[in-house]
Amino acid sequence: MFHEITVVQFTKMLQNLSAILDKGAAYAEEKKFDVNVLLHSRLAPDQFSLLRQVQIATDTAKLGVSRITGVAAPSHDDKETTVGELKDRIESVIAWLGTVTPDHFAGAAERRVTTPRWNGKTLSGAEYATQHVIPNVYFHITTAYAILRHNGVDIGKKDFLGPMPFRDPS
Amino acid sequence: MFHEITVVQFTKMLQNLSAILDKGAAYAEEKKFDVNVLLHSRLAPDQFSLLRQVQIATDTAKLGVSRITGVAAPSHDDKETTVGELKDRIESVIAWLGTVTPDHFAGAAERRVTTPRWNGKTLSGAEYATQHVIPNVYFHITTAYAILRHNGVDIGKKDFLGPMPFRDPS
Repeated sequence: MFHEITVVQFTKMLQNLSAILDKGAAYAEEKKFDVNVLLHSRLAPDQFSLLRQVQIATDTAKLGVSRITGVAAPSHDDKETTVGELKDRIESVIAWLGTVTPDHFAGAAERRVTTPRWNGKTLSGAEYATQHVIPNVYFHITTAYAILRHNGVDIGKKDFLGPMPFRDPS
Repeated sequence: MFHEITVVQFTKMLQNLSAILDKGAAYAEEKKFDVNVLLHSRLAPDQFSLLRQVQIATDTAKLGVSRITGVAAPSHDDKETTVGELKDRIESVIAWLGTVTPDHFAGAAERRVTTPRWNGKTLSGAEYATQHVIPNVYFHITTAYAILRHNGVDIGKKDFLGPMPFRDPS
């Protein structure tokens, strides 16, 4: 289950994020405004812009899974300025997540995990995933969605959740 | 782990939600405006208000866990109009979550789950938790946070995440 709730679900959510960025770009095109207006929009003056929300969402997913499993992650230099570049970044994180297998999660729940900000303090892999990484990934993707929604982009909950693997009634 | 990522973590997130509502109420008091302005704020004209986001966040957590485990949940009649009433609703869901134990999750991952909206289609308990309930709980709590943040309430990521069970360096 650990692999499912991180690697598999983050992959799906990043695909959804990429798709709502496309809807934002299409909206800018339709309304004839510069898509950079959306990329630099924010909900509060001291909160991050859409562009930064996408960078952080991808970093959170990538670094979270890397720290939990011990698998080295690719680095990104935060130089994206366009929707296309942001989508490439998302794509590269999805591609990397695809290389992380359930076997990489052996012992991960008990592994002690830290980050540069924690001054040597640690969480278990399970605590870090459940209380930090997962909430943060959803936080930044929801905030990206909210910035687009606030600016009039026609997206809804289905765009956020993505398709469900429904089974028809038997 | 199933109990941890739903019951335990939802309880923590609902406590965090209750605490940011307090910060919203304190901000209204300090700035001398009616707290109802916050409760009826929304980020887009066709998105739900803060009050409704809190109702849905609690319902999603409650009904999600109930459907996954088969434990009956209390009903709430959506009549809240004040911060105090919303906090009572959160408290009652937290109290109910406290009665759901890891044992209640036996067989839950494979249980077929449906909702009134799905016309008989089903997801497995694991699919429903991972792809529907957890994303939705975070979606509505993040949106509630975003509405408060957008209106100037002084809250940050730590308020959203809550305290971490850090272990000091040994």
